[in-house]
Amino acid sequence: MRNSFSSAELQRLLHTNDHKGLTALCEAAHPASVAHAVAEFGLRDSVAVFDQLPLHVATDVFSHLHTAHQERIMEGLSRRRLTGLVSSMQPDDRAALLRSLPDRCRDAILPGLAQAERDDILRLMAYPSHSAGAVMTSEYVSLAPQMSAREAIDTFRLVAPDRETVYYAYVLDDDRKLVGVLSLRELILARPESLVHEIMKTRVLSVRAEQDREEAVEIIARYNLLALPVLDEQDRLVGIITHDDALDVLQNEHTEDMEKFMAIGGRHETGTYVNTPSWRHFVNRAPWVMGLAVLGLVSGSIIHSFEDSLMHLVILALYMPMLADTGGNTGSQSATVVIRAIALGEVKPGDGLRIMFKELKISLLLAAVLSVMAFGKVLLLSHGVVLPVGISLYSLGLAVAVALGVQVVTATLVGAMLPMIASRLRMDPAVVASPALTTVVDITGLLIYFTTARLLLGV
Amino acid sequence: MRNSFSSAELQRLLHTNDHKGLTALCEAAHPASVAHAVAEFGLRDSVAVFDQLPLHVATDVFSHLHTAHQERIMEGLSRRRLTGLVSSMQPDDRAALLRSLPDRCRDAILPGLAQAERDDILRLMAYPSHSAGAVMTSEYVSLAPQMSAREAIDTFRLVAPDRETVYYAYVLDDDRKLVGVLSLRELILARPESLVHEIMKTRVLSVRAEQDREEAVEIIARYNLLALPVLDEQDRLVGIITHDDALDVLQNEHTEDMEKFMAIGGRHETGTYVNTPSWRHFVNRAPWVMGLAVLGLVSGSIIHSFEDSLMHLVILALYMPMLADTGGNTGSQSATVVIRAIALGEVKPGDGLRIMFKELKISLLLAAVLSVMAFGKVLLLSHGVVLPVGISLYSLGLAVAVALGVQVVTATLVGAMLPMIASRLRMDPAVVASPALTTVVDITGLLIYFTTARLLLGV
Repeated sequence: MRNSFSSAELQRLLHTNDHKGLTALCEAAHPASVAHAVAEFGLRDSVAVFDQLPLHVATDVFSHLHTAHQERIMEGLSRRRLTGLVSSMQPDDRAALLRSLPDRCRDAILPGLAQAERDDILRLMAYPSHSAGAVMTSEYVSLAPQMSAREAIDTFRLVAPDRETVYYAYVLDDDRKLVGVLSLRELILARPESLVHEIMKTRVLSVRAEQDREEAVEIIARYNLLALPVLDEQDRLVGIITHDDALDVLQNEHTEDMEKFMAIGGRHETGTYVNTPSWRHFVNRAPWVMGLAVLGLVSGSIIHSFEDSLMHLVILALYMPMLADTGGNTGSQSATVVIRAIALGEVKPGDGLRIMFKELKISLLLAAVLSVMAFGKVLLLSHGVVLPVGISLYSLGLAVAVALGVQVVTATLVGAMLPMIASRLRMDPAVVASPALTTVVDITGLLIYFTTARLLLGV
Repeated sequence: MRNSFSSAELQRLLHTNDHKGLTALCEAAHPASVAHAVAEFGLRDSVAVFDQLPLHVATDVFSHLHTAHQERIMEGLSRRRLTGLVSSMQPDDRAALLRSLPDRCRDAILPGLAQAERDDILRLMAYPSHSAGAVMTSEYVSLAPQMSAREAIDTFRLVAPDRETVYYAYVLDDDRKLVGVLSLRELILARPESLVHEIMKTRVLSVRAEQDREEAVEIIARYNLLALPVLDEQDRLVGIITHDDALDVLQNEHTEDMEKFMAIGGRHETGTYVNTPSWRHFVNRAPWVMGLAVLGLVSGSIIHSFEDSLMHLVILALYMPMLADTGGNTGSQSATVVIRAIALGEVKPGDGLRIMFKELKISLLLAAVLSVMAFGKVLLLSHGVVLPVGISLYSLGLAVAVALGVQVVTATLVGAMLPMIASRLRMDPAVVASPALTTVVDITGLLIYFTTARLLLGV
C-alpha cells in the first residue's frame, strides 16, 4: 500500500513549529490522507494545522473533513483565516458546510466574502437538503454551439485547473438552456475544425434541481455517468452532480437508511460516531425507544385483559416470547427486502398487490415450517407439566402452533405493507423502523395468541 | 425528464416482427433504458429482444441487466448467440456473469470462446467474489515512460473506443510494473513534446487484487478517483476498478448489509426482489428464523424454571414483553451505529474499550429515563390489582424499573460489543443480525427480570 501517511510525523512538525516541514509534508500527500490524520487529533492540534498551512493546502485538506469536524475546527480559527478558507472551497462543499452551520456562525462568515461568492452560496443553500440542487456544484465547463473543436479544447485548457470535472462540457444556447453534451474524449477524437453542435450529443440525461438527490444518484449509477447536469424549471443549466458526490450521497443514504430503520433520529451524517458527544447519541436514540415503551402500554393492557386465561393456564406465558420474537423477525425481514426493492426503483407504489401476494406465499411456507417446530417445542418443554382438566399436551401444542402460524403470516404482510404505504404517502420507506414494527407485531401477536387459546382451549 | 423510453413501443415492434424499427429504437436509446424496460418483460419477449437485435446493441443492453435476469435469458438463447454475446461483453461484466452461473451453463459457454478470451475470463474468475480482483476490468490504457505527450494522445485516440475508462492512463515499465499515472486532462495541458515520465504522477494509489472490494471503494470515495489500479503481488498492473463499478459495489454492499443485519441469507444481489421466486425468498429467510426459534427454547426454559415465581405473581408476565422489546430496541440501535462506524473505517477493532465506555454512558442515560417510565407504567396499569401479601405496588414498580434499567445497559453493551468482536475475527460486522441480537437480549432480559423479582420481591 502506498496510501499511508505519517500522522506522528505531522504531529511532530506541528509541535516543533516547523512550518516549512509541515507544508512540505502536507503538499506531498493527498489532502484526503492529511484530513484523515487530522480527524484523529485533538481540537487544539487540528486548529493549529489549519492556522499554519498555506491557504490553498489548508482548503484542500479542510474540504476532505466531515462537516461535524469542520464545524468544530471553525470555532477555533481566526475570522480572517475562516473567510479565506470558505471562499476558496468548492461551491458545493462550501454550501453544504454553511447549510449545516448554526445561524450565528453563518452570519459571522458571510459578510467577509465577496458579493459574487455570497450570492452563489445563498443560491445553492436555498435548495432543500435532500434535493439534487443541494449536492450539485456550480463549477463546470460550458461551450457555445458555434465553437470549433479546437476552440473547445482551448476552453478546456483555460478553465481546467479550476473546474471539478472537466471530462464533460455542456453546450448552452444564448438563454443558458442545455442543448448538448460533449466528452473530452469525443473532442480529442474529433477533427479540430468541426463545430461543437455537429459533434455534440443532443440527448442529454438531466435532473431538475428540486428532485430528490437519490434519483440523481440512481441515474448516475444506472448510466455510468461521470457527471449529471441539473436544470431549473426553464431548462437552464444551474449545476452538475459529479460521480464522487454520487458516492458520498450513497454512503450517506446508507447510514441514514440503517439508522432510520433502527429508529435512530438526528442528522444521519456519516463518519461522526466517534466525534458526536454521548448526550447527542442519547437524544438521537431516546425518543423512539421512549415512544415504543409508551406503545408497549398497549401490549401490557392486552395481557392484563387476558389475565384470567393466564391465571388458569400459567404455562401460556412460556410461549409468549417465542411468538413475539418470531413475529418481529419475519416482519423485519419482509420490511427489509421491500424497503430495498423500493429504494432501488425495482418496486413502485402501484405494485402493492403483487408484492403482498408474493409475501403471502413466502409467509405461508415460513408459517408451515415454524408451526411444526412450535408443536415439537411444546411437546419437548411442557411434557410432564400438570395441565388443567380438559386440556391435553397435544391440544396445547396445537393452539401454540396455530397461533404462531397466524402470527408469522400477519407479521410478514404487515412488514411488507407498511413501507409500501409510506412510499405511497411520499415518505421514505425506511421510516418503518424495525423496532416500531416489532412493537406492532407484538400487539397483534398477543391478540392472536390469547384469542386462539380461548377458542381452542376454552381458557 | 428526457430519460424516458417507451417500453410499449418496444413490445409493439417486437410483436410485429419489425426488426428494423426495433433496432432503430434501441440504438437511439441508452442501453440502460432498454435493459430497464426489458427487465419487466416476460421470459419469451426478453429472449426475443436479444435474438432480434444486432449483436453490438444486444451486448450493450445485456450488460445493463442484473445477473439474475441475464441467467434466465441465457437459458432461452441459441448457443451461437450466447457465445457471441459473452465474447463481446466487457471483461469484468463477463467474468461476474460467468462466476454466478451454475457449472453446467459455464461449461456450455466457455468452449465456444476464443483462447485469449477464455484465459482472460478464467483469470478474472479466479479472484474470490468479494475481492478487488473480482470487480476490476482488464481494459485500460497503458503508456510507456519514454513516449512523448503527442504519442500518448495518439495512443488514446487509437484505443479510446474500446476502453472502459480513458480518462486515466497507466504508465508501465518493461515488467508491467506500475510506475505512474497520467490523466487525459494533464496530457492535454502538457506541451506535446514533453515525455510521459516527466509529466506523470509517480505517487499512485492502488490496491492488491486480493484485498476486499469494499476497501477499494473506500479509497475511490475518499480520494474522488475515476479509477483505481489493481496490482498483483509483484506490483504488476492486472486491472482497474472504475468509478461506476464503485457505485455498483456500494449499492450491493448496502443491500447485503441490510439483509445480513435482518438475518436474510442468499446472494444479496440488488435488483432481484421481483424476479426471485417465492421459494428462493423462503430459503433465504427460513434458516435464521428457524435457528432463532430453536434458540428460543432457551428463553422458554428460563421462564419454565421460574414458573413458581410466575404462579405466585402472574402480574410479572405483564411486563415481560416490555422488557424484551426495549432490550431488543436499544441493543439493535447500538449495533447499528457501531456497524456503520466500522464499515466507514471510523472505528478500528482496537478502539473497543473507548466504544464500550461511550455506549455505557449513553445506555445509563437511556436506562434512567426508561426506568422512570417503567415505574410510572406499573403504577398506571397495575393499580387496583390484588397483590400477594408483602408486595406493594411500589415495590413491584421498583423491581420492574430496576430490571429494565439493567436490561437496557446490558443490551446496549452487548449490541456494541458483538460487531466489534466480529470485526476483530475478520468477519463482516453486519453478521451480528438484529434478530439474533434480539433473541440473545431476550434471554439476558428474562434472567435479569426474574432474578431481580426474586431478590427484591422474594417471589
